[in-house]
Amino acid sequence: MKAAIFKGIGNIEIGERPDSTIKEPTDAVVRVVMACVCGSDLWYYRGESDYTPGDPIGHEFIGVVDQVGDDVKNISIGDFVISPFAYCDNTCPNCKNGITTACVNGGFIPAGNGDGGQGEFVRVPLAEGTLVKVPGSDHSEEILASLLTLTDVMGTGHHAAVSAGVKEGDTVAVVGDGAVGLCAIIAAKRLGAERIIALSRYPARQELAKEFGATDIVEERGEAAVEAIRKLTDGIGVDAALECVGTNEAMQTAFAIARPGSIVGTVGVPHGVEIPFQEIFFRNVGVHGGPAPVRAYLPELLEDVLSGKINPGRVFDLKTDLDDIKEAYAAMDERRAIKSLLRVSSI
Amino acid sequence: MKAAIFKGIGNIEIGERPDSTIKEPTDAVVRVVMACVCGSDLWYYRGESDYTPGDPIGHEFIGVVDQVGDDVKNISIGDFVISPFAYCDNTCPNCKNGITTACVNGGFIPAGNGDGGQGEFVRVPLAEGTLVKVPGSDHSEEILASLLTLTDVMGTGHHAAVSAGVKEGDTVAVVGDGAVGLCAIIAAKRLGAERIIALSRYPARQELAKEFGATDIVEERGEAAVEAIRKLTDGIGVDAALECVGTNEAMQTAFAIARPGSIVGTVGVPHGVEIPFQEIFFRNVGVHGGPAPVRAYLPELLEDVLSGKINPGRVFDLKTDLDDIKEAYAAMDERRAIKSLLRVSSI
Repeated sequence: MKAAIFKGIGNIEIGERPDSTIKEPTDAVVRVVMACVCGSDLWYYRGESDYTPGDPIGHEFIGVVDQVGDDVKNISIGDFVISPFAYCDNTCPNCKNGITTACVNGGFIPAGNGDGGQGEFVRVPLAEGTLVKVPGSDHSEEILASLLTLTDVMGTGHHAAVSAGVKEGDTVAVVGDGAVGLCAIIAAKRLGAERIIALSRYPARQELAKEFGATDIVEERGEAAVEAIRKLTDGIGVDAALECVGTNEAMQTAFAIARPGSIVGTVGVPHGVEIPFQEIFFRNVGVHGGPAPVRAYLPELLEDVLSGKINPGRVFDLKTDLDDIKEAYAAMDERRAIKSLLRVSSI
Repeated sequence: MKAAIFKGIGNIEIGERPDSTIKEPTDAVVRVVMACVCGSDLWYYRGESDYTPGDPIGHEFIGVVDQVGDDVKNISIGDFVISPFAYCDNTCPNCKNGITTACVNGGFIPAGNGDGGQGEFVRVPLAEGTLVKVPGSDHSEEILASLLTLTDVMGTGHHAAVSAGVKEGDTVAVVGDGAVGLCAIIAAKRLGAERIIALSRYPARQELAKEFGATDIVEERGEAAVEAIRKLTDGIGVDAALECVGTNEAMQTAFAIARPGSIVGTVGVPHGVEIPFQEIFFRNVGVHGGPAPVRAYLPELLEDVLSGKINPGRVFDLKTDLDDIKEAYAAMDERRAIKSLLRVSSI
């Protein structure tokens, strides 16, 4: 089968990989309909995190079930499904506590299952717990794109908001205008935030931020951004700061703008982040977050996508196919695209 | 007037200090009835934090209002009051958000007001916002001791539990068996925790922990404690870990026993604490806490003390008077006492 292969820094190619197969009776194999490139894939592409050359890559995809193992009962061949970026049994204590990314039997794609999401087929372990069937069959391209965000970025933005405890009437700031940051705006609005300050320097992203619910845009960075947001909040800071980047600069900005008593919700994979604990302790500012349990959030977010209440698929501003993987990565790397969608097959 | 004076490491004496006076029209002067020694005073006593020789010390006291400034309307001479360890206007945005220790006009005792709590009189700034009147006048010594804990340790233990989000049915672990840790047990039980694991090596503290609601005692420390608590929780960890010490070892233990998705509630003044952010991020474990806004918690805790529902005054196992300040400190320093109460005057 065809799949994306990490060849080295700045070099991801489509090549031939062994066909996905059922290895455990709890597995399914999914034929990929749509996949995409994640901001976290760029850490490897840019050489900022290690990745083994020759390994498959990608972890976001929706598709049609092609094979099922003998123990898979509630998922059938032909089902149209969403596959979260981490697989889980959805029954262990951590899953029951809502943290499916800490499932005691689970793992991450592609490290734990052997196939990358950017390919024609993917083996999905613990298929009954992991995959979520999509009702209906005749979805528009727009809805499909939004369903694709539920595999990661929409659920991840939501997790930032949930981790920060966003509630009705809050003033929220979102640090990061990538796909996750933009989805965090949707999430904050959905949870009732009254004022949403987006930190963004790019006009196209500012537009989308406003469309998603941002009420204020701050173009500054670092100390100047902190100053601007303090001014917007009468010197007090925001009720919830959502950190959606993972760099130390983004995190320090989030801490500085968080008001006393608030929690910084963080979902950006941390790179060189230092927690200024003494400082945040004395201001009663906390930090909470991690790999988003998107499986746990899927039912409620799926309902809102299907009803048209939220349209996170708008983050895809480059749509191409699997063979154009180089451009899909390059456009995101060069910030020409917010997020690249790969059309792989028809439903 | 007589008051405790920090003379140097290991040396706190009663000496003469200038009488407390009204300096601002929003001040009150309180005649101290009971005061006490805090675990945080020991940081200075032991030389682990800097303190200026000659300065007054102490921040926990209850007493009778002796003088009021011209702008103080809802507090009168003769009122029996509780004074939180931080003063606040109770009207600024941070106070309204429940973080009275971040009051934009507030400060800490004795740094901000000039008088220490361990003395005959104390000037209390922003008296209307800070002081809480105690209804009734004929309280038992037991009730008075419990009222005294509301100036700091009971509110601080409660803040650990609130910051960690303790809720009905939770399994909670309390790291630290000092007065704050013991009060955190009361707080966790009060918020509905079903199982409360106390980390304690001292028999007298273990007994009190059980009296306050601990269901399990873990005597081990460090890795062995983590192992023991993992075993008690089927390998998952606790729903809330309350860190009530402030050392790096206590904090690392709290992180290690916190289950995925949970928050470590922390109130121990941090000394050399390092946050292992990469590790806690990937487990979705957060941290939240700081100087407890005891003023905000006072009304609900006061009600429970007066009704006899909680008896945090039980933490005082050494009762003496102001002249015996040396023994009050030494007994706590040598762990002969959990907490030392100083009887200063009659109501």
